[in-house]
Amino acid sequence: MGWTDGYIAVDWGTTNRRAYLIDGTGKHADEFEDGKGILSVAPLGFGDAVAEIRRRLGDKPLLMAGMVGSNRGWREAPYVSCPADLDDLAKALVWAGDREAIIPGVSYIGEGRADVMRGEEVQLLGAAAVGLVDPHALVCHPGTHNKWALLRHGKIHSFRTVMTGELFSLLKAHSILADLLQGEVEANEAFKQAAKHALYEEALTADLFAVRAGVLLGQAKKEDAATWTSGLLIGSDVRIGLSVPDGAQIHVMGRPELTRLYAAAVGQAGREAIELDGEQCFLAGIHEIAKRISH
Amino acid sequence: MGWTDGYIAVDWGTTNRRAYLIDGTGKHADEFEDGKGILSVAPLGFGDAVAEIRRRLGDKPLLMAGMVGSNRGWREAPYVSCPADLDDLAKALVWAGDREAIIPGVSYIGEGRADVMRGEEVQLLGAAAVGLVDPHALVCHPGTHNKWALLRHGKIHSFRTVMTGELFSLLKAHSILADLLQGEVEANEAFKQAAKHALYEEALTADLFAVRAGVLLGQAKKEDAATWTSGLLIGSDVRIGLSVPDGAQIHVMGRPELTRLYAAAVGQAGREAIELDGEQCFLAGIHEIAKRISH
Repeated sequence: MGWTDGYIAVDWGTTNRRAYLIDGTGKHADEFEDGKGILSVAPLGFGDAVAEIRRRLGDKPLLMAGMVGSNRGWREAPYVSCPADLDDLAKALVWAGDREAIIPGVSYIGEGRADVMRGEEVQLLGAAAVGLVDPHALVCHPGTHNKWALLRHGKIHSFRTVMTGELFSLLKAHSILADLLQGEVEANEAFKQAAKHALYEEALTADLFAVRAGVLLGQAKKEDAATWTSGLLIGSDVRIGLSVPDGAQIHVMGRPELTRLYAAAVGQAGREAIELDGEQCFLAGIHEIAKRISH
Repeated sequence: MGWTDGYIAVDWGTTNRRAYLIDGTGKHADEFEDGKGILSVAPLGFGDAVAEIRRRLGDKPLLMAGMVGSNRGWREAPYVSCPADLDDLAKALVWAGDREAIIPGVSYIGEGRADVMRGEEVQLLGAAAVGLVDPHALVCHPGTHNKWALLRHGKIHSFRTVMTGELFSLLKAHSILADLLQGEVEANEAFKQAAKHALYEEALTADLFAVRAGVLLGQAKKEDAATWTSGLLIGSDVRIGLSVPDGAQIHVMGRPELTRLYAAAVGQAGREAIELDGEQCFLAGIHEIAKRISH
């Protein structure tokens, strides 16, 4: 029973996991998502967690990406250094069992800084492999920790992480702005105005407090506060991402509700971003790696 | 029993309160501090909370500043607009009882933004009144929400709040950096280097994630992470504060463990900051306002 009869792809993150059944023809035949991220699995509980996936999707080999390969996951898969492509990832698979392979993350050291990713590399390189992004491109991958990756010759050449998603969550859950941030975030005029402000006048940690002061003093609408705050954070993020001097095409890859916001902010910088669905890129990347497994 | 027989000054914040007995000669005779900030007092519980203060310090009139005058406090004291001085504050006292006065906060609207303070105005104007700061000065007041205030002719002319303290607390309590931020923060070389980095290369939301990646990849020492992160946040804060084009003397007012850090970061910007003890400034400002109460 090898990989040619199909397999299960798992995008296993910190708080969620998403599993896909891929049949022998490479088609995505079934899937499910649940909240059993690695933090909810006990250190010795991954065997059971995997058995549960197989009960739901079939008794197939597993190819996993994401935080499942971190030091808090099932088995640590050491980072592959930049520049990295799908061959490099496939060669560095870590086997947690005979039929359970974990894809390593990617690390970058350069420009006086260090960075890491786990999970996004499959999407980035998958998209490049099937021609969804150019071999030379600047790709933004929003999420809890947004990644700006520079592709060169189809490899991940360098990347930079921005904590935007986590900061918004922290502010929404625990800060003095919390009651103002419970509303919906929309890619509307207020969002674009906030993003533009943060793109050109960097004072994020002051602008965040001004959200509250503006509402208190009747200078801003309470119902715009979540959108405005998100615009400030994403505008600041895009300013950092575009500080790489590069004319490459910009892509934004991920969940559509996030790519829409980032594409709007990129537009405020006078650039255009092509939006890509992250799930499609993930499946493309996983399948390229599965094809490289010979046993 | 008027104010000439002495009074009690209370700096009543969100999570703490500090009460001082000032005797008839203006001397600070006794004090205590506890965790009974306004969030721990029920809406109708301020009478009891004040009775407790009097049991400890004596049956004197009370002059209060800080969040006790906010819409979550005892009685709301509407903001006084900039430019504001001690006379403006004294005229706008709000009386919660016959012998219980609340000092209003100060608001600023200008340069396309809005801002508010509650509590810091007493320290800022108190220091100016007794000559601890020049009538024209740039004063930094670190805390949960750092304030950069520009004094002109001894009045608060304008100010800007930076969320530095709250962001550090959020990161330490709830973020992916939490386990790295439990150590002591020191005004050492690592702090200065981080502050300088943030002063001249603004990418705070990326630099924060790089703290974790640097430790993971062995590029940074785990024991420096709290100091480095604080240096990034305070450096970014000082960059915002010094963006006011002004050659005025810089003062940093507050708790010594914080003023030391800010003074070090200001030094990295090639400027010099005079450190002032916030408590001394508070008592000076309170006493100036008490002198203006005629009944």
